[in-house]
Amino acid sequence: MSASAIEGGLERGFTAGEFAERTARAQARLTDAGMAGMLLMSEADIRYFTGFHTLFWQSPTRPWFVFVPQSGKPVAIIPEIGAALMRQSWVEDIRTWSAPNPADDGISLLIDLLSPFAAPSEMGEGQVIGLLKGHETNLRMPLGDFERLCAALPNLTFGDATDIVRALRVVKTPAEQEKLRHICAIGSDTFSALPEFVKEGMPLEDVFRAFRIKALSLGADDVPYLVGAAGQGGYLDVISPPSRAPLQTGDILMLDTGATWDGYFCDFDRNFAIGQADDDAKRAYDVLYAATEAGLAAARVGNDCAGLFHAMAEVTKTLDPSGGDIGRFGHGLGMQLTEQPSHAGFDHTPLEAGMVLTLEPSLSYGDNHMMVHEENILITDKGAELLTKRAAPELPII
Amino acid sequence: MSASAIEGGLERGFTAGEFAERTARAQARLTDAGMAGMLLMSEADIRYFTGFHTLFWQSPTRPWFVFVPQSGKPVAIIPEIGAALMRQSWVEDIRTWSAPNPADDGISLLIDLLSPFAAPSEMGEGQVIGLLKGHETNLRMPLGDFERLCAALPNLTFGDATDIVRALRVVKTPAEQEKLRHICAIGSDTFSALPEFVKEGMPLEDVFRAFRIKALSLGADDVPYLVGAAGQGGYLDVISPPSRAPLQTGDILMLDTGATWDGYFCDFDRNFAIGQADDDAKRAYDVLYAATEAGLAAARVGNDCAGLFHAMAEVTKTLDPSGGDIGRFGHGLGMQLTEQPSHAGFDHTPLEAGMVLTLEPSLSYGDNHMMVHEENILITDKGAELLTKRAAPELPII
Repeated sequence: MSASAIEGGLERGFTAGEFAERTARAQARLTDAGMAGMLLMSEADIRYFTGFHTLFWQSPTRPWFVFVPQSGKPVAIIPEIGAALMRQSWVEDIRTWSAPNPADDGISLLIDLLSPFAAPSEMGEGQVIGLLKGHETNLRMPLGDFERLCAALPNLTFGDATDIVRALRVVKTPAEQEKLRHICAIGSDTFSALPEFVKEGMPLEDVFRAFRIKALSLGADDVPYLVGAAGQGGYLDVISPPSRAPLQTGDILMLDTGATWDGYFCDFDRNFAIGQADDDAKRAYDVLYAATEAGLAAARVGNDCAGLFHAMAEVTKTLDPSGGDIGRFGHGLGMQLTEQPSHAGFDHTPLEAGMVLTLEPSLSYGDNHMMVHEENILITDKGAELLTKRAAPELPII
Repeated sequence: MSASAIEGGLERGFTAGEFAERTARAQARLTDAGMAGMLLMSEADIRYFTGFHTLFWQSPTRPWFVFVPQSGKPVAIIPEIGAALMRQSWVEDIRTWSAPNPADDGISLLIDLLSPFAAPSEMGEGQVIGLLKGHETNLRMPLGDFERLCAALPNLTFGDATDIVRALRVVKTPAEQEKLRHICAIGSDTFSALPEFVKEGMPLEDVFRAFRIKALSLGADDVPYLVGAAGQGGYLDVISPPSRAPLQTGDILMLDTGATWDGYFCDFDRNFAIGQADDDAKRAYDVLYAATEAGLAAARVGNDCAGLFHAMAEVTKTLDPSGGDIGRFGHGLGMQLTEQPSHAGFDHTPLEAGMVLTLEPSLSYGDNHMMVHEENILITDKGAELLTKRAAPELPII
């Protein structure tokens, strides 16, 4: 919201000026792309241009729309239940309907808004409206309603505006960087405290619960993401919910958390051995620590995401030549737990100052075990700045 | 997962037999609808038929697909990172790719799977594959990829299978009911304890944090949804994140929570007055309490959602004739915070034993204030069974 609240020296929300700046930059790109505007539907994209921030998106029932025209402020077409909150934003043109309404969930309001752009030109065609159709996007409205919208506006063309929004969102503004720095510090403090509240014999489910409580106590707003695993000599999977199995001597424990502050995520993990660790696990840890060091050195303006991936893969392949099937060794970080770009061979996005990224090398070892290390960094003109407190150089034993 | 873990007498996960039963019931409906199968993409729908349960859906990067054929087990087409977890489910045919891969994020695997159904028949057309295109659904894959899939299979028709999945999911199985009963009890205990940890002078943000910690301490796995508000004589909005403003004497405080246990939500709120309450707020509370009583009496097999809405609206209109712009007075509850059906004039879904619903009457009063009451119920052959501990009959003052 444009009305910022100060907390521990750090303000919540963003200034109206920041939203105006973001919008102006998008509009310049829309003009270049020959698009008359773009229609946004996702939580993160709508928040990015309006500041509309609510957990109500947990409810999948209602669609939400924000239209960014080629000039002027964004226009909100939203369920009435969101009107009071949207009125606190810098958006002035707020059009609402009593939702849910299966017969017309905002579609007639969209048609009213977009039909001026659908008038046939001399060439017999309407204008182009951007929509996010590309990699890592979803259509957050019923497909049947989208088909009805297209049928009602046959002269309108929906172009792909994914790259326009992506180009803005991958480089974090200074105010965004501060929020990310803050939540990464809270996550780091939570992991630092972990040996105080995790003991042998504790069921993994209770470890998760204690971790969440500690993160909240240290200032996180929420812990929307917490996965992990524990197993003798290593773990097999990195996305599972916790079992009730108690931690045992010789287990390798991994927790990976996405905690949030003011709508921005940290995303990193830590590994621990319970009581003792075998040489295979120590060796995997050492290789991943070295791979992350290589990533930190390679995370510089002038390099690209593929280069960053290869720098880490050069190290991990000393233990695991497969390079991993996980698909990548890190990604962008911000309003979403994972954002573009990807540290993978296919992604040649140049690294730019202001990007906030994860470094996340992983490998397989031993008896079907896997291990993942993860840190969060900010790209600066001088190289990578760690936002997380660097993991211990040797596998910690608790 | 089919491997259930016992906790406090309550098992996590479901038996393989339950997934087989759900699938068989969907398949009978697919056959009736003339569909050769259906393609699922959302977290809840995929979990419903496979048991695949992970917070990894927080990452929007990768699409996930499960195909339910007209006979046989579901087929998973998923990113490799999910393979280990999916192998713990009852699904046997698991096809993976190294994701993300913008050039081919599962599309060629989908084409392989679906092309047998796209072979032209004597009529020159392929078969019909169900997709969830209707009310309350999204397309959880890039629209551009969906367009490529359609172009690659021009003889295939994607029909709307929304009603097939909806018909199953709106009636909860006994095992689902037990999970919902458990999380509603945890939510109730958290609200019962609230006067112990909330005091005048406490910033609303700290109230939220303390509530989350208490819910976790009492056994919730997570609190993905927590909204609320506080204001002198009443609140203006029901979906906002908390401010830093301290609670003051005369404030009406409302918290609305969606906590989870084993992937199932409670969703209800409670209202409190800080120190004292004025007559307007007490009157609004009394009317909403009476409206909920009317809802409890009307929530019986033989009635429908519209009837339930009107029973509550008859009471709320004694104070607020508008009937509210929020759109409805409650909804289904389960793996999602809000599910079909809706208690609204447009929804003539008959109430059936096994449905788990919220009753959520709201009204406007005084100086632009609003108030919401909410309870969670199970429809039984004998009427409504409260899953939440009933709100106090008079506005509690703390």
